[in-house]
Amino acid sequence: MAAVILLLVALASPAAARYTPDWASLDGRPLPSWYDEAKLGIFVHWGVFSVPGFDSEWFWWHWQGQQPPDPKCVSYMSKNYPPGFSYPEFAPHFRAQFFNPEEWADIFKASGAKYVVLTAKHHEGFTNWRSPYSWNWNSVDTGPYRDLVGELGDAVRNRSLHYGLYNSLYEWFNPLYLEDKKNGFKTQKFVMQKLLPELYNMVVRYRPEVIWSDGDWEAPDTYWNSTQFLAWLYNDSPVKDAVVTNDRWGAGCACKHGGFYNCEDKYTPGQLPKHKWEKCTSVDTLSWGYRRNMKLQELMDLPAIVYDLVSTVALGGNYLLNVGPTADGTIPPVFEERLRGLGAWLETNGEAIFATTPWRVQLENTTVPVWYTSKGPTVYAIITARPPTSTLKLSIPKTSAATKVTLLGSPSPLPWAPVYPNAGLTVLLPELPSTAAQAWALKLDAVQ
Amino acid sequence: MAAVILLLVALASPAAARYTPDWASLDGRPLPSWYDEAKLGIFVHWGVFSVPGFDSEWFWWHWQGQQPPDPKCVSYMSKNYPPGFSYPEFAPHFRAQFFNPEEWADIFKASGAKYVVLTAKHHEGFTNWRSPYSWNWNSVDTGPYRDLVGELGDAVRNRSLHYGLYNSLYEWFNPLYLEDKKNGFKTQKFVMQKLLPELYNMVVRYRPEVIWSDGDWEAPDTYWNSTQFLAWLYNDSPVKDAVVTNDRWGAGCACKHGGFYNCEDKYTPGQLPKHKWEKCTSVDTLSWGYRRNMKLQELMDLPAIVYDLVSTVALGGNYLLNVGPTADGTIPPVFEERLRGLGAWLETNGEAIFATTPWRVQLENTTVPVWYTSKGPTVYAIITARPPTSTLKLSIPKTSAATKVTLLGSPSPLPWAPVYPNAGLTVLLPELPSTAAQAWALKLDAVQ
Amino acid sequence: MAAVILLLVALASPAAARYTPDWASLDGRPLPSWYDEAKLGIFVHWGVFSVPGFDSEWFWWHWQGQQPPDPKCVSYMSKNYPPGFSYPEFAPHFRAQFFNPEEWADIFKASGAKYVVLTAKHHEGFTNWRSPYSWNWNSVDTGPYRDLVGELGDAVRNRSLHYGLYNSLYEWFNPLYLEDKKNGFKTQKFVMQKLLPELYNMVVRYRPEVIWSDGDWEAPDTYWNSTQFLAWLYNDSPVKDAVVTNDRWGAGCACKHGGFYNCEDKYTPGQLPKHKWEKCTSVDTLSWGYRRNMKLQELMDLPAIVYDLVSTVALGGNYLLNVGPTADGTIPPVFEERLRGLGAWLETNGEAIFATTPWRVQLENTTVPVWYTSKGPTVYAIITARPPTSTLKLSIPKTSAATKVTLLGSPSPLPWAPVYPNAGLTVLLPELPSTAAQAWALKLDAVQ
Amino acid sequence: MAAVILLLVALASPAAARYTPDWASLDGRPLPSWYDEAKLGIFVHWGVFSVPGFDSEWFWWHWQGQQPPDPKCVSYMSKNYPPGFSYPEFAPHFRAQFFNPEEWADIFKASGAKYVVLTAKHHEGFTNWRSPYSWNWNSVDTGPYRDLVGELGDAVRNRSLHYGLYNSLYEWFNPLYLEDKKNGFKTQKFVMQKLLPELYNMVVRYRPEVIWSDGDWEAPDTYWNSTQFLAWLYNDSPVKDAVVTNDRWGAGCACKHGGFYNCEDKYTPGQLPKHKWEKCTSVDTLSWGYRRNMKLQELMDLPAIVYDLVSTVALGGNYLLNVGPTADGTIPPVFEERLRGLGAWLETNGEAIFATTPWRVQLENTTVPVWYTSKGPTVYAIITARPPTSTLKLSIPKTSAATKVTLLGSPSPLPWAPVYPNAGLTVLLPELPSTAAQAWALKLDAVQ
Repeated sequence: MAAVILLLVALASPAAARYTPDWASLDGRPLPSWYDEAKLGIFVHWGVFSVPGFDSEWFWWHWQGQQPPDPKCVSYMSKNYPPGFSYPEFAPHFRAQFFNPEEWADIFKASGAKYVVLTAKHHEGFTNWRSPYSWNWNSVDTGPYRDLVGELGDAVRNRSLHYGLYNSLYEWFNPLYLEDKKNGFKTQKFVMQKLLPELYNMVVRYRPEVIWSDGDWEAPDTYWNSTQFLAWLYNDSPVKDAVVTNDRWGAGCACKHGGFYNCEDKYTPGQLPKHKWEKCTSVDTLSWGYRRNMKLQELMDLPAIVYDLVSTVALGGNYLLNVGPTADGTIPPVFEERLRGLGAWLETNGEAIFATTPWRVQLENTTVPVWYTSKGPTVYAIITARPPTSTLKLSIPKTSAATKVTLLGSPSPLPWAPVYPNAGLTVLLPELPSTAAQAWALKLDAVQ
Repeated sequence: MAAVILLLVALASPAAARYTPDWASLDGRPLPSWYDEAKLGIFVHWGVFSVPGFDSEWFWWHWQGQQPPDPKCVSYMSKNYPPGFSYPEFAPHFRAQFFNPEEWADIFKASGAKYVVLTAKHHEGFTNWRSPYSWNWNSVDTGPYRDLVGELGDAVRNRSLHYGLYNSLYEWFNPLYLEDKKNGFKTQKFVMQKLLPELYNMVVRYRPEVIWSDGDWEAPDTYWNSTQFLAWLYNDSPVKDAVVTNDRWGAGCACKHGGFYNCEDKYTPGQLPKHKWEKCTSVDTLSWGYRRNMKLQELMDLPAIVYDLVSTVALGGNYLLNVGPTADGTIPPVFEERLRGLGAWLETNGEAIFATTPWRVQLENTTVPVWYTSKGPTVYAIITARPPTSTLKLSIPKTSAATKVTLLGSPSPLPWAPVYPNAGLTVLLPELPSTAAQAWALKLDAVQ
Repeated sequence: MAAVILLLVALASPAAARYTPDWASLDGRPLPSWYDEAKLGIFVHWGVFSVPGFDSEWFWWHWQGQQPPDPKCVSYMSKNYPPGFSYPEFAPHFRAQFFNPEEWADIFKASGAKYVVLTAKHHEGFTNWRSPYSWNWNSVDTGPYRDLVGELGDAVRNRSLHYGLYNSLYEWFNPLYLEDKKNGFKTQKFVMQKLLPELYNMVVRYRPEVIWSDGDWEAPDTYWNSTQFLAWLYNDSPVKDAVVTNDRWGAGCACKHGGFYNCEDKYTPGQLPKHKWEKCTSVDTLSWGYRRNMKLQELMDLPAIVYDLVSTVALGGNYLLNVGPTADGTIPPVFEERLRGLGAWLETNGEAIFATTPWRVQLENTTVPVWYTSKGPTVYAIITARPPTSTLKLSIPKTSAATKVTLLGSPSPLPWAPVYPNAGLTVLLPELPSTAAQAWALKLDAVQ
Repeated sequence: MAAVILLLVALASPAAARYTPDWASLDGRPLPSWYDEAKLGIFVHWGVFSVPGFDSEWFWWHWQGQQPPDPKCVSYMSKNYPPGFSYPEFAPHFRAQFFNPEEWADIFKASGAKYVVLTAKHHEGFTNWRSPYSWNWNSVDTGPYRDLVGELGDAVRNRSLHYGLYNSLYEWFNPLYLEDKKNGFKTQKFVMQKLLPELYNMVVRYRPEVIWSDGDWEAPDTYWNSTQFLAWLYNDSPVKDAVVTNDRWGAGCACKHGGFYNCEDKYTPGQLPKHKWEKCTSVDTLSWGYRRNMKLQELMDLPAIVYDLVSTVALGGNYLLNVGPTADGTIPPVFEERLRGLGAWLETNGEAIFATTPWRVQLENTTVPVWYTSKGPTVYAIITARPPTSTLKLSIPKTSAATKVTLLGSPSPLPWAPVYPNAGLTVLLPELPSTAAQAWALKLDAVQ
């Protein structure tokens, strides 16, 4: 009986054509549309690394992995911990006692973001859920004693946000991985006994709509069995229709294969890319994970964040903005302030961001930088600094008599005059409303 | 030779008359002038209470002192600590490993403040210096292993800021205090064996220019020997000329005796007080000590802080703004942001604040609230919200032909017109510069 | 060349016939002779359970596994630890800072034992060596940071003692095991991904001469793949010639299959068993692992231990006496005293124990219990309590004129007289030397 | 009515004359008789030093006090603790979770001892009771959260044992003491503000029948105000009639002033002292406090303890035998074994110990050492090793026809013969019963 039903489904749905485990086939899959429309996501780096809260989420590697180790990390440990203290001993101090997923999700929702991506497992290998393949090295067996992935997922989805999971392929110090590595990745003990069983389990259990893969670069995709996994993900997994993935599936894949492209961290293209991409970046410019000793000047301020979002969207990208919660389970107020500030700006200006597409020109440097987005026939010119005078000249849009200019947030059309016939316009700006973001959007109707 | 010089000083300075240990004499001491000119200080609550970082610096009392105890505190402890865990066990976790007094002092300096007051000892009795009367219950014998009072004092003074110390008279759980209390304060074991020896030692060792006394209310000043202490402080201590104190020296003293008046915490007078006063308040509206779970909406934002400062100064007060550092020794970035934001505003507008005196009227509610200060013949009208229109009518100042109006931070005089002959003026405002503080100061020359 | 040698070995040694993975074949393997001659071994239970040091090495199960849990364990945890404290958090406190394998091995050697068996992994799953299949749940990644299995092995072997490893097949809380269990042991995820890879690795790495298997009873040997493992162990492993194993290889195996038989813990047969067996028991009668609150009356005293050894050997068994070291890495002095006391007794009386075989009668209850052992033509009668009079009548040995009786430790022959012609003898005892063990051995030459 | 009785007592008892605070008077006080009759006490060293359980109860001083510090202690700390870890941080780990005063008292009672002396406060200054003068540095405010002094006292007295308290006059690191010391002991801040108030409080609260003073040697008794304290203790304290003290009341006092003399630790006189004395010694020969790494060969065995007790009593001394409980609150079984073994010996032989007086000769070295005690006309000859032959010649006792010799524990008189007429005797020993103590007592009636 099941077979019959499946057959009917297959007949009814041409999308049910199956992907084969090779890049040619997998790369041909259209990206589910929700993702491009979403534009803004929140990235959350949380793990045992949040306990030392020092250096960055790469602390373990910088301290004990790389050669030579980072002297700051070595010195921090030798000054504050007994000799021989090992990284796993941080885990019991990952308490999350204040973690309230509802409050987190409220903040993420208030930022205007449409999706949230949590580190289900970072390079340290600690899973924020009860992976049966990571016994006693996960957030339910020790530390928080809670299913962080599940709890946050529920809260996020209750607010109609999409939910994604970051997953590191490699684990710096996993002995099975190290053995494979020593064998030149000709063995796959780690992949077969740990990585893949865990990853399938995670997808089935939590149904993430983004799989944000990372930690792929030391080995080819054939080691990770990436194409097989993706074929299953796209063909047979419970999220086969909605899921998007990125491009970190093996050495050489980044910017070349997969779903959207992250290329490298904080990647910013010089011109409009041909493939859907995402810029991931962090409020704390020095770390993705929480740092107990972060200082104000090391953090992005709101204007920088809005500028970054605007330019990314204008260039066709999504913007995934990271915050690092504390081991106690709180989002530091300075991060909350950035997220709420961003949401306040989007409250008025989101129209120029969400579900837009790049325009024929992305940037015009007039007295201030102006970034363009578009939605159908409408063009948005986003001013990313307070102009020095009350007029703003835009040379790129071609106007007509029907052209209408408004400032998002203000009902009345703005006076404007053409610069040349049908080419360029000078807009008379009103007093720009005070906004911490230092950006304003003009809506241009009937321009080309 | 020394004797001769001292004699000359005595002859030259009537202030050298000795105070007697009674309020009549002590209250007659003129307040050293630096204090009134300073206007802005930073208050720092730091101690073992920063370790739980929950509820407030009153955590111990709320948990184990008051009857009935606060169920939130009781529940927090029972959920997160083993039965019988005692407050002193928090002390080893007061690590201050990131404490850099130079960085702290840089931030305090950048706020525009002229003085800093640190909790040398709060009601918990833990001293942030090596008090010989508080063995193993101080920051050098345990926890940070550092002289916090001394280290911060050096850094603060190197930046030409005045340095004050908060000292709690009572100690909630000190057994000697509890014994005196049980005896109806007819014995003074605590005062004689702990409080006073320690206080004298502290003054001689650190030479604080503010002694911010607290915890006085359960017993009369005669129990605390307050007048004797103050007489020594004013007559013979190494800080006898510069030191200022507040008014918390025994039940009934607040708002009545001592140096400047704090009256109660966050006290805000309805009209111009006759005696120099200080408003102490905290960026975190729910606590003076650090709270690990503070949320953005519980914090003062910059406009609220600037408004508070302005109205306090207009009413003749000083403003002592509190931040609570973490047990790790950091100032949370959201606090740093407030302090630097305040400093940025004072960079332009400090002229209307520092060394000013209250004007004949303090507040005019025109389209927005406007607070007045003055300095010699100059009057400052501080606008504490963005006016809805580009003109601002001030009814109180009496103008003349010589009247000149400028916006602090802009060189050119502003056009203005009298409302009535010599009474009131309407100022044509320029586009007000963008400022996170949402406040601007007009300088009015030749008005009355 | 190697091939030739191997061929010669194969020709010379019919034992090189290969075992097949079935009990019929495996049970036919002769036990390597060192084991039966050894008689006395020391058992060492050491692991994370040594940290709570409460209840027993089964603490985790009693606390959180069995239904209903043991109220003493639940209460101990709720009184002394925060809510939610999990067992893995004990691991960092397994410090072993005083662990000196040379000192341990000295004590074991001094006990007279010929082999030592250490818990490489108990039911908790924590390995005392760096198992690649137990990442972050082993003694090198956390806690001691040391290869306990390797370090003790080196020290033990340097003293010419044999070295064995205890290994638990099941792991109470291993999620893969629990999954198999839920599946009625029809899946073998745990066995294939964890148990067997680890066990092979352990054998190759440490070359144990005893594999003391345990934790088998919940599943049949076919689940554990026991016969396949043993076939490899006997045919191809690096210890194929010397290794002995016990009988815990699956439900129903105990007392029936395998190498020597343990049957159940502390098993004591009523008469001479037909198969080589071993009695394992513990100085602490209530636990195998260290208990911080053990009391003297709960411990075996030396006479009880010696009696137990003597009767076990007389009945053809080996005696494996357990001590539980502390989490600090020390052997409690009261255990050391037992072991050294045992060794002192064996110094004189070991001749009646080591490399002996059971005699035709094992026990004679005369005025005191007398156990017999034999070695070739010599018979030993071991007196296990101080006889009430100075003569001892033995009815079992058949004497002749050549019969000679000596007390071990004394050179001169003892006077004796036959009870009946050729049947029984009465020995005139000398004053028995004082010994804490309260046991003495008579050597009977030329008796039957 | 009470007044009348008191008057009668005063009339009847010349001892009610008041002592004056000078040695001439104080030294004249007769020692309460219970003490000399008691002979055997148990000493208990317990405190924060039990937590590191390393080196000895002097760990803090060896680590951070003496110059140069003990490299073993320094190395232990640097290997196992973070830099800057301070001794007070050990206090929270002094948990005493297994402390059952009833069990302890049972063991002490079973040892045969008649009194118990607990360290109420050792040189570290930590009080095992809630001293109001040692806030947060006592066993009720932190660590055990229990009144150890009170709880043990109740249990001990319920078994009719006398209860004494050890109190250290000096505190190595008390800042007030260090200040007085720096002042050449010409100031008495420490004595007046800490030591004496605490000591009076302790005596009134716990009514110790022994005050075992220590830590006196750095300053003269005039610094400690010892004579004033003792005058109060003997005249007016609640224990004025029963209390005994030792001789450590200031530099130069030991062996010269006070109650009984300890002279130095483990002091053993060469001949019969004229003044009542006490030998204090410890089962662990290297420490009084618990050492986690103690080894068997560092401990006294039972024969050594019994020999020590016997020779001490023969020489007129009391014997105070020390055990160091763990920080968990247990008495290590090896100590329990010693105490119970001692009690078992005293069960039979206590008649030769308790309430005896020295005889005219204390020691006779015949084939084995024999120590003499006496009680009225009876003389006890205690044989402290198993004699090589079955006869024992004693040369010192003068016999008569009425002389009767028995072995304690055996009813029948032993055959004996004079060596010379009325001088010396040869006793025919029975087979000596087996005893772990290796000592036996002969009771000689009608000898001189």
